[in-house]
Amino acid sequence: MNSDMLIRITRYYRALNRLRAIGLEKVFAHNLSDAAGVSAAVVRKDFSILAIHGQKRGGYEITELIDKLSALLGKGEPQNVIVVGCGRIGKALMHYSGFEPDGIRVVAGFDTDPIVYSDASHPVPVYPLSRIEEVIEALDVRVAIITVPEASAADTAEKLMEAGIRGILNFSPITLKPRPVAEGENPCVIHNINIALELEQIFYQLQFPDAIKG
Amino acid sequence: MNSDMLIRITRYYRALNRLRAIGLEKVFAHNLSDAAGVSAAVVRKDFSILAIHGQKRGGYEITELIDKLSALLGKGEPQNVIVVGCGRIGKALMHYSGFEPDGIRVVAGFDTDPIVYSDASHPVPVYPLSRIEEVIEALDVRVAIITVPEASAADTAEKLMEAGIRGILNFSPITLKPRPVAEGENPCVIHNINIALELEQIFYQLQFPDAIKG
Repeated sequence: MNSDMLIRITRYYRALNRLRAIGLEKVFAHNLSDAAGVSAAVVRKDFSILAIHGQKRGGYEITELIDKLSALLGKGEPQNVIVVGCGRIGKALMHYSGFEPDGIRVVAGFDTDPIVYSDASHPVPVYPLSRIEEVIEALDVRVAIITVPEASAADTAEKLMEAGIRGILNFSPITLKPRPVAEGENPCVIHNINIALELEQIFYQLQFPDAIKG
Repeated sequence: MNSDMLIRITRYYRALNRLRAIGLEKVFAHNLSDAAGVSAAVVRKDFSILAIHGQKRGGYEITELIDKLSALLGKGEPQNVIVVGCGRIGKALMHYSGFEPDGIRVVAGFDTDPIVYSDASHPVPVYPLSRIEEVIEALDVRVAIITVPEASAADTAEKLMEAGIRGILNFSPITLKPRPVAEGENPCVIHNINIALELEQIFYQLQFPDAIKG
Protein backbone atom coordinates (compact mmCIF):
# COMPACT_ATOMS: atom_id res chain seq x y z
CA MET A 1 0.00 0.00 0.00
CA ASN A 2 1.43 3.42 -0.85
CA SER A 3 0.69 6.57 1.11
CA ASP A 4 -1.92 7.89 -1.38
CA MET A 5 -3.85 4.67 -1.03
CA LEU A 6 -3.63 4.90 2.75
CA ILE A 7 -5.09 8.40 2.64
CA ARG A 8 -7.95 7.16 0.47
CA ILE A 9 -8.63 4.25 2.79
CA THR A 10 -8.78 6.44 5.89
CA ARG A 11 -11.21 8.64 3.96
CA TYR A 12 -13.37 5.67 2.95
CA TYR A 13 -13.29 4.51 6.55
CA ARG A 14 -14.41 7.85 7.87
CA ALA A 15 -17.16 8.20 5.26
CA LEU A 16 -18.43 4.69 6.03
CA ASN A 17 -18.74 5.48 9.73
CA ARG A 18 -20.76 8.58 8.88
CA LEU A 19 -23.01 6.70 6.50
CA ARG A 20 -23.62 4.01 9.11
CA ALA A 21 -24.37 6.70 11.69
CA ILE A 22 -27.22 8.04 9.53
CA GLY A 23 -28.70 4.56 9.17
CA LEU A 24 -27.41 3.32 5.81
CA GLU A 25 -26.58 -0.36 5.39
CA LYS A 26 -25.23 -0.52 1.88
CA VAL A 27 -22.81 1.64 -0.03
CA PHE A 28 -21.73 1.91 -3.66
CA ALA A 29 -18.32 2.76 -5.06
CA HIS A 30 -19.56 6.13 -6.27
CA ASN A 31 -20.72 7.10 -2.73
CA LEU A 32 -17.18 6.53 -1.48
CA SER A 33 -15.65 8.21 -4.50
CA ASP A 34 -17.46 11.44 -3.58
CA ALA A 35 -16.13 11.23 -0.03
CA ALA A 36 -12.54 10.52 -1.01
CA GLY A 37 -12.35 12.83 -4.00
CA VAL A 38 -11.42 10.08 -6.47
CA SER A 39 -13.27 8.31 -9.27
CA ALA A 40 -15.46 5.27 -8.57
CA ALA A 41 -13.00 3.24 -10.67
CA VAL A 42 -10.22 4.05 -8.19
CA VAL A 43 -12.43 2.93 -5.29
CA ARG A 44 -13.13 -0.38 -7.05
CA LYS A 45 -9.45 -0.85 -7.85
CA ASP A 46 -8.42 -0.15 -4.22
CA PHE A 47 -10.97 -2.68 -2.97
CA SER A 48 -9.87 -5.25 -5.48
CA ILE A 49 -6.21 -4.81 -4.38
CA LEU A 50 -7.41 -5.33 -0.80
CA ALA A 51 -9.43 -8.42 -1.88
CA ILE A 52 -12.69 -6.77 -0.85
CA HIS A 53 -15.49 -7.80 -3.15
CA GLY A 54 -18.93 -6.31 -3.67
CA GLN A 55 -22.17 -8.23 -3.91
CA LYS A 56 -23.78 -9.59 -7.03
CA ARG A 57 -26.41 -6.86 -7.17
CA GLY A 58 -23.67 -4.27 -6.69
CA GLY A 59 -22.68 -2.36 -3.57
CA TYR A 60 -20.97 -3.35 -0.36
CA GLU A 61 -22.31 -4.04 3.15
CA ILE A 62 -21.21 -1.03 5.22
CA THR A 63 -20.61 -3.01 8.42
CA GLU A 64 -18.52 -5.60 6.61
CA LEU A 65 -16.46 -2.89 4.90
CA ILE A 66 -15.89 -1.05 8.18
CA ASP A 67 -14.66 -4.26 9.82
CA LYS A 68 -12.27 -4.99 6.99
CA LEU A 69 -10.88 -1.45 6.71
CA SER A 70 -10.71 -1.21 10.48
CA ALA A 71 -8.45 -4.30 10.62
CA LEU A 72 -6.33 -2.89 7.79
CA LEU A 73 -5.95 0.46 9.56
CA GLY A 74 -5.03 -1.19 12.85
CA LYS A 75 -8.04 0.16 14.70
CA GLY A 76 -9.00 -1.29 18.06
CA GLU A 77 -5.66 -0.20 19.50
CA PRO A 78 -5.93 2.84 21.78
CA GLN A 79 -5.25 5.95 19.72
CA ASN A 80 -4.15 8.23 22.53
CA VAL A 81 -2.31 11.46 21.85
CA ILE A 82 -0.83 14.20 24.00
CA VAL A 83 -0.59 17.91 23.17
CA VAL A 84 2.79 19.44 24.00
CA GLY A 85 2.62 23.21 24.26
CA CYS A 86 -0.72 24.46 25.60
CA GLY A 87 -0.86 27.92 24.06
CA ARG A 88 -3.82 28.95 21.91
CA ILE A 89 -3.37 26.32 19.22
CA GLY A 90 -2.58 23.60 21.73
CA LYS A 91 -5.66 24.49 23.75
CA ALA A 92 -7.83 24.51 20.63
CA LEU A 93 -6.60 21.00 19.84
CA MET A 94 -7.29 19.78 23.41
CA HIS A 95 -10.89 20.92 22.86
CA TYR A 96 -11.13 19.76 19.23
CA SER A 97 -14.14 17.52 18.63
CA GLY A 98 -12.99 16.38 15.19
CA PHE A 99 -10.82 13.57 16.59
CA GLU A 100 -13.62 11.57 18.19
CA PRO A 101 -15.15 10.10 15.00
CA ASP A 102 -11.72 8.61 14.28
CA GLY A 103 -11.26 7.10 17.72
CA ILE A 104 -8.42 9.49 18.54
CA ARG A 105 -8.34 10.82 22.11
CA VAL A 106 -6.29 13.68 23.48
CA VAL A 107 -5.49 12.31 26.96
CA ALA A 108 -3.16 14.97 28.37
CA GLY A 109 -1.38 18.24 27.73
CA PHE A 110 2.16 19.30 28.64
CA ASP A 111 3.69 22.70 29.14
CA THR A 112 6.78 24.19 30.76
CA ASP A 113 4.93 27.19 32.19
CA PRO A 114 3.57 26.65 35.74
CA ILE A 115 0.80 29.18 35.03
CA VAL A 116 -0.39 26.93 32.22
CA TYR A 117 -0.05 23.53 33.87
CA SER A 118 -1.51 24.70 37.17
CA ASP A 119 -4.62 26.03 35.46
CA ALA A 120 -7.47 23.60 36.17
CA SER A 121 -9.75 24.80 33.36
CA HIS A 122 -8.32 22.53 30.65
CA PRO A 123 -10.49 19.74 29.25
CA VAL A 124 -7.73 17.18 30.01
CA PRO A 125 -5.00 17.18 32.69
CA VAL A 126 -1.98 19.32 31.84
CA TYR A 127 1.41 18.33 33.29
CA PRO A 128 4.84 19.96 33.47
CA LEU A 129 6.99 18.72 30.60
CA SER A 130 9.45 17.27 33.12
CA ARG A 131 6.88 14.56 33.97
CA ILE A 132 6.55 13.39 30.37
CA GLU A 133 8.12 9.94 30.79
CA GLU A 134 6.05 8.92 33.77
CA VAL A 135 2.77 10.23 32.33
CA ILE A 136 3.01 8.74 28.84
CA GLU A 137 3.85 5.38 30.35
CA ALA A 138 0.83 5.54 32.65
CA LEU A 139 -1.49 6.68 29.85
CA ASP A 140 -0.12 4.36 27.14
CA VAL A 141 0.73 7.13 24.69
CA ARG A 142 3.12 6.92 21.77
CA VAL A 143 1.96 9.89 19.66
CA ALA A 144 2.34 13.62 20.42
CA ILE A 145 1.16 16.84 18.81
CA ILE A 146 3.79 19.59 19.11
CA THR A 147 2.41 23.13 19.39
CA VAL A 148 5.31 24.84 21.15
CA PRO A 149 6.95 28.07 19.93
CA GLU A 150 9.42 27.71 17.11
CA ALA A 151 12.49 28.29 19.32
CA SER A 152 11.78 25.27 21.53
CA ALA A 153 10.38 22.87 18.90
CA ALA A 154 13.59 20.95 18.16
CA ASP A 155 14.46 20.50 21.86
CA THR A 156 10.91 19.45 22.67
CA ALA A 157 10.90 16.84 19.90
CA GLU A 158 14.22 15.48 21.19
CA LYS A 159 12.79 15.19 24.74
CA LEU A 160 9.67 13.45 23.48
CA MET A 161 11.61 10.89 21.47
CA GLU A 162 13.88 10.19 24.46
CA ALA A 163 10.79 9.67 26.60
CA GLY A 164 9.44 7.04 24.21
CA ILE A 165 7.19 9.00 21.84
CA ARG A 166 7.21 7.27 18.43
CA GLY A 167 4.99 9.55 16.35
CA ILE A 168 4.89 13.36 16.16
CA LEU A 169 2.52 15.76 14.46
CA ASN A 170 4.45 19.03 14.43
CA PHE A 171 2.67 22.39 14.12
CA SER A 172 5.72 24.52 14.78
CA PRO A 173 7.21 26.19 11.69
CA ILE A 174 10.50 24.26 12.14
CA THR A 175 10.63 21.16 9.94
CA LEU A 176 11.42 18.27 12.27
CA LYS A 177 13.24 15.22 10.98
CA PRO A 178 13.39 11.74 12.55
CA ARG A 179 16.64 10.93 14.37
CA PRO A 180 18.88 8.36 12.74
CA VAL A 181 18.24 4.96 14.33
CA ALA A 182 20.15 1.71 14.59
CA GLU A 183 19.57 -0.96 11.96
CA GLY A 184 16.38 -2.93 12.56
CA GLU A 185 14.95 -0.14 14.71
CA ASN A 186 12.05 1.92 13.33
CA PRO A 187 12.55 5.69 13.12
CA CYS A 188 10.08 8.03 14.76
CA VAL A 189 7.22 8.95 12.39
CA ILE A 190 7.06 12.74 11.99
CA HIS A 191 4.47 14.74 10.06
CA ASN A 192 5.02 18.49 9.79
CA ILE A 193 2.09 20.88 9.28
CA ASN A 194 3.40 24.34 8.50
CA ILE A 195 0.41 26.66 8.33
CA ALA A 196 2.32 29.73 7.12
CA LEU A 197 3.99 27.65 4.42
CA GLU A 198 0.62 26.42 3.17
CA LEU A 199 -0.61 30.02 2.92
CA GLU A 200 2.62 31.05 1.16
CA GLN A 201 2.03 28.38 -1.43
CA ILE A 202 -1.56 29.51 -1.98
CA PHE A 203 -0.41 33.12 -2.50
CA TYR A 204 2.26 31.92 -4.88
CA GLN A 205 -0.14 29.80 -6.91
CA LEU A 206 -2.57 32.70 -7.16
CA GLN A 207 0.09 35.03 -8.40
CA PHE A 208 1.65 32.59 -10.83
CA PRO A 209 -1.19 30.23 -11.81
CA ASP A 210 0.85 28.52 -14.49
CA ALA A 211 4.02 28.17 -12.42
CA ILE A 212 3.06 24.97 -10.64
CA LYS A 213 3.30 21.86 -12.75
CA GLY A 214 2.53 18.59 -11.01
CA MET B 1 9.00 25.05 -11.16
CA ASN B 2 7.25 22.06 -9.56
CA SER B 3 5.53 22.16 -6.18
CA ASP B 4 8.41 20.45 -4.31
CA MET B 5 10.78 23.10 -5.57
CA LEU B 6 8.35 25.83 -4.53
CA ILE B 7 8.23 24.40 -1.01
CA ARG B 8 12.03 24.38 -0.86
CA ILE B 9 12.23 27.95 -2.10
CA THR B 10 9.77 29.24 0.47
CA ARG B 11 11.88 27.43 3.08
CA TYR B 12 15.12 28.99 1.79
CA TYR B 13 13.41 32.36 1.79
CA ARG B 14 12.27 32.01 5.37
CA ALA B 15 15.68 30.76 6.55
CA LEU B 16 17.39 33.66 4.79
CA ASN B 17 15.22 36.21 6.56
CA ARG B 18 16.10 34.62 9.90
CA LEU B 19 19.80 34.56 9.12
CA ARG B 20 19.69 38.21 8.11
CA ALA B 21 17.78 39.04 11.30
CA ILE B 22 20.64 37.65 13.41
CA GLY B 23 23.19 39.72 11.51
CA LEU B 24 24.61 37.34 8.92
CA GLU B 25 25.57 38.67 5.49
CA LYS B 26 26.66 35.58 3.65
CA VAL B 27 25.21 32.11 3.42
CA PHE B 28 26.42 28.79 2.06
CA ALA B 29 24.41 26.07 0.35
CA HIS B 30 24.81 23.78 3.35
CA ASN B 31 23.28 26.42 5.69
CA LEU B 32 20.17 26.44 3.53
CA SER B 33 20.18 22.68 3.13
CA ASP B 34 19.82 22.32 6.91
CA ALA B 35 16.87 24.70 6.91
CA ALA B 36 15.05 23.05 4.02
CA GLY B 37 15.83 19.45 4.91
CA VAL B 38 17.54 18.67 1.60
CA SER B 39 21.15 18.11 0.58
CA ALA B 40 23.44 21.04 -0.31
CA ALA B 41 23.58 19.62 -3.83
CA VAL B 42 19.82 20.13 -4.19
CA VAL B 43 20.16 23.74 -3.00
CA ARG B 44 22.89 24.39 -5.60
CA LYS B 45 20.82 22.73 -8.30
CA ASP B 46 17.72 24.79 -7.42
CA PHE B 47 19.76 27.99 -7.56
CA SER B 48 21.32 27.03 -10.85
CA ILE B 49 17.85 26.37 -12.34
CA LEU B 50 16.86 29.83 -11.11
CA ALA B 51 20.05 31.32 -12.59
CA ILE B 52 21.25 32.40 -9.14
CA HIS B 53 25.03 32.16 -8.92
CA GLY B 54 27.32 32.18 -5.90
CA GLN B 55 30.53 34.14 -5.55
CA LYS B 56 34.00 33.00 -6.49
CA ARG B 57 35.00 32.40 -2.88
CA GLY B 58 31.80 30.42 -2.39
CA GLY B 59 28.62 31.46 -0.67
CA TYR B 60 25.85 33.87 -1.57
CA GLU B 61 25.07 37.41 -0.40
CA ILE B 62 21.97 37.03 1.80
CA THR B 63 20.39 40.35 0.78
CA GLU B 64 20.82 39.58 -2.90
CA LEU B 65 19.35 36.10 -2.47
CA ILE B 66 16.37 37.47 -0.53
CA ASP B 67 15.66 40.01 -3.27
CA LYS B 68 15.79 37.36 -5.97
CA LEU B 69 13.66 34.79 -4.14
CA SER B 70 11.28 37.52 -3.06
CA ALA B 71 10.65 38.47 -6.70
CA LEU B 72 10.21 34.80 -7.60
CA LEU B 73 7.72 34.27 -4.79
CA GLY B 74 5.74 37.36 -5.72
CA LYS B 75 6.40 39.12 -2.43
CA GLY B 76 5.65 42.79 -2.07
CA GLU B 77 1.98 42.17 -2.83
CA PRO B 78 -0.23 42.44 0.26
CA GLN B 79 -0.63 38.95 1.71
CA ASN B 80 -3.88 39.52 3.57
CA VAL B 81 -6.01 36.63 4.80
CA ILE B 82 -9.29 36.30 6.63
CA VAL B 83 -10.32 33.61 9.10
CA VAL B 84 -13.81 32.24 8.52
CA GLY B 85 -15.19 30.51 11.60
CA CYS B 86 -13.98 32.06 14.85
CA GLY B 87 -14.21 29.07 17.19
CA ARG B 88 -11.17 27.93 19.16
CA ILE B 89 -9.00 27.07 16.17
CA GLY B 90 -10.06 30.19 14.26
CA LYS B 91 -9.30 32.35 17.27
CA ALA B 92 -5.90 30.72 17.74
CA LEU B 93 -5.10 31.54 14.11
CA MET B 94 -6.23 35.16 14.51
CA HIS B 95 -3.68 35.43 17.34
CA TYR B 96 -0.98 33.35 15.63
CA SER B 97 2.37 35.12 15.51
CA GLY B 98 3.94 32.68 13.06
CA PHE B 99 2.51 34.47 10.00
CA GLU B 100 4.37 37.76 10.51
CA PRO B 101 7.86 36.63 9.45
CA ASP B 102 6.29 35.63 6.12
CA GLY B 103 4.50 38.92 5.58
CA ILE B 104 1.09 37.30 5.98
CA ARG B 105 -1.50 39.32 7.90
CA VAL B 106 -4.84 38.12 9.25
CA VAL B 107 -6.95 41.23 8.65
CA ALA B 108 -10.42 40.09 9.71
CA GLY B 109 -12.52 37.23 11.00
CA PHE B 110 -16.00 36.12 9.98
CA ASP B 111 -18.63 34.16 11.85
CA THR B 112 -22.36 33.53 11.59
CA ASP B 113 -22.91 33.70 15.35
CA PRO B 114 -23.79 37.21 16.65
CA ILE B 115 -22.27 36.31 20.04
CA VAL B 116 -18.95 35.76 18.27
CA TYR B 117 -18.95 38.70 15.88
CA SER B 118 -20.22 41.17 18.49
CA ASP B 119 -17.43 40.23 20.89
CA ALA B 120 -14.89 43.07 20.86
CA SER B 121 -12.03 41.07 22.39
CA HIS B 122 -10.67 39.68 19.11
CA PRO B 123 -7.27 40.85 17.87
CA VAL B 124 -8.81 41.79 14.48
CA PRO B 125 -12.36 42.89 13.60
CA VAL B 126 -14.85 40.04 13.26
CA TYR B 127 -17.81 40.49 10.90
CA PRO B 128 -21.00 38.56 10.19
CA LEU B 129 -20.46 36.23 7.24
CA SER B 130 -23.21 38.09 5.35
CA ARG B 131 -20.86 41.09 4.98
CA ILE B 132 -18.10 39.04 3.33
CA GLU B 133 -18.27 40.64 -0.13
CA GLU B 134 -18.12 44.22 1.07
CA VAL B 135 -15.35 43.55 3.63
CA ILE B 136 -12.96 41.58 1.43
CA GLU B 137 -13.25 44.22 -1.25
CA ALA B 138 -12.45 46.97 1.24
CA LEU B 139 -9.52 45.03 2.73
CA ASP B 140 -8.13 43.69 -0.55
CA VAL B 141 -8.32 40.02 0.45
CA ARG B 142 -8.27 37.03 -1.87
CA VAL B 143 -7.28 34.26 0.54
CA ALA B 144 -9.33 32.73 3.38
CA ILE B 145 -8.69 30.19 6.12
CA ILE B 146 -11.77 28.03 6.80
CA THR B 147 -12.18 26.86 10.39
CA VAL B 148 -15.95 26.30 10.48
CA PRO B 149 -17.57 23.08 11.69
CA GLU B 150 -17.63 20.21 9.24
CA ALA B 151 -21.35 20.52 8.48
CA SER B 152 -21.04 24.07 7.13
CA ALA B 153 -17.64 23.81 5.42
CA ALA B 154 -18.88 23.12 1.87
CA ASP B 155 -21.49 25.92 2.00
CA THR B 156 -18.99 28.34 3.45
CA ALA B 157 -16.44 27.60 0.73
CA GLU B 158 -19.13 28.15 -1.91
CA LYS B 159 -20.04 31.52 -0.39
CA LEU B 160 -16.40 32.59 -0.22
CA MET B 161 -15.76 31.71 -3.85
CA GLU B 162 -18.89 33.59 -4.93
CA ALA B 163 -17.69 36.60 -2.98
CA GLY B 164 -14.37 36.63 -4.84
CA ILE B 165 -12.05 34.55 -2.64
CA ARG B 166 -9.49 32.83 -4.87
CA GLY B 167 -7.46 30.81 -2.36
CA ILE B 168 -8.63 28.69 0.59
CA LEU B 169 -6.77 26.93 3.37
CA ASN B 170 -9.32 24.50 4.75
CA PHE B 171 -9.03 23.09 8.28
CA SER B 172 -12.43 21.40 8.32
CA PRO B 173 -12.30 17.61 7.93
CA ILE B 174 -14.28 17.82 4.66
CA THR B 175 -12.00 17.71 1.61
CA LEU B 176 -12.91 20.77 -0.47
CA LYS B 177 -12.39 20.75 -4.20
CA PRO B 178 -12.19 23.75 -6.57
CA ARG B 179 -15.34 24.44 -8.60
CA PRO B 180 -15.13 23.75 -12.31
CA VAL B 181 -14.38 27.00 -14.14
CA ALA B 182 -14.79 28.25 -17.69
CA GLU B 183 -11.89 27.84 -20.11
CA GLY B 184 -9.19 30.47 -19.60
CA GLU B 185 -10.37 31.16 -16.05
CA ASN B 186 -8.18 30.04 -13.13
CA PRO B 187 -9.76 27.72 -10.59
CA CYS B 188 -9.74 28.59 -6.91
CA VAL B 189 -6.59 27.29 -5.16
CA ILE B 190 -7.58 25.03 -2.27
CA HIS B 191 -5.27 23.39 0.28
CA ASN B 192 -6.83 21.01 2.78
CA ILE B 193 -5.27 20.38 6.20
CA ASN B 194 -6.99 17.48 7.88
CA ILE B 195 -5.53 17.18 11.37
CA ALA B 196 -7.31 13.95 12.30
CA LEU B 197 -6.22 12.36 9.02
CA GLU B 198 -2.58 13.27 9.70
CA LEU B 199 -2.82 11.61 13.12
CA GLU B 200 -4.51 8.56 11.58
CA GLN B 201 -1.63 8.18 9.19
CA ILE B 202 0.92 8.43 12.00
CA PHE B 203 -0.91 5.73 13.98
CA TYR B 204 -1.05 3.58 10.88
CA GLN B 205 2.64 4.00 10.09
CA LEU B 206 3.55 3.12 13.68
CA GLN B 207 1.48 -0.01 13.60
CA PHE B 208 2.63 -1.15 10.18
CA PRO B 209 6.10 0.37 9.74
CA ASP B 210 6.75 -1.54 6.54
CA ALA B 211 3.36 -0.86 4.96
CA ILE B 212 4.15 2.55 3.51
CA LYS B 213 6.30 2.49 0.45
CA GLY B 214 6.95 5.84 -1.17
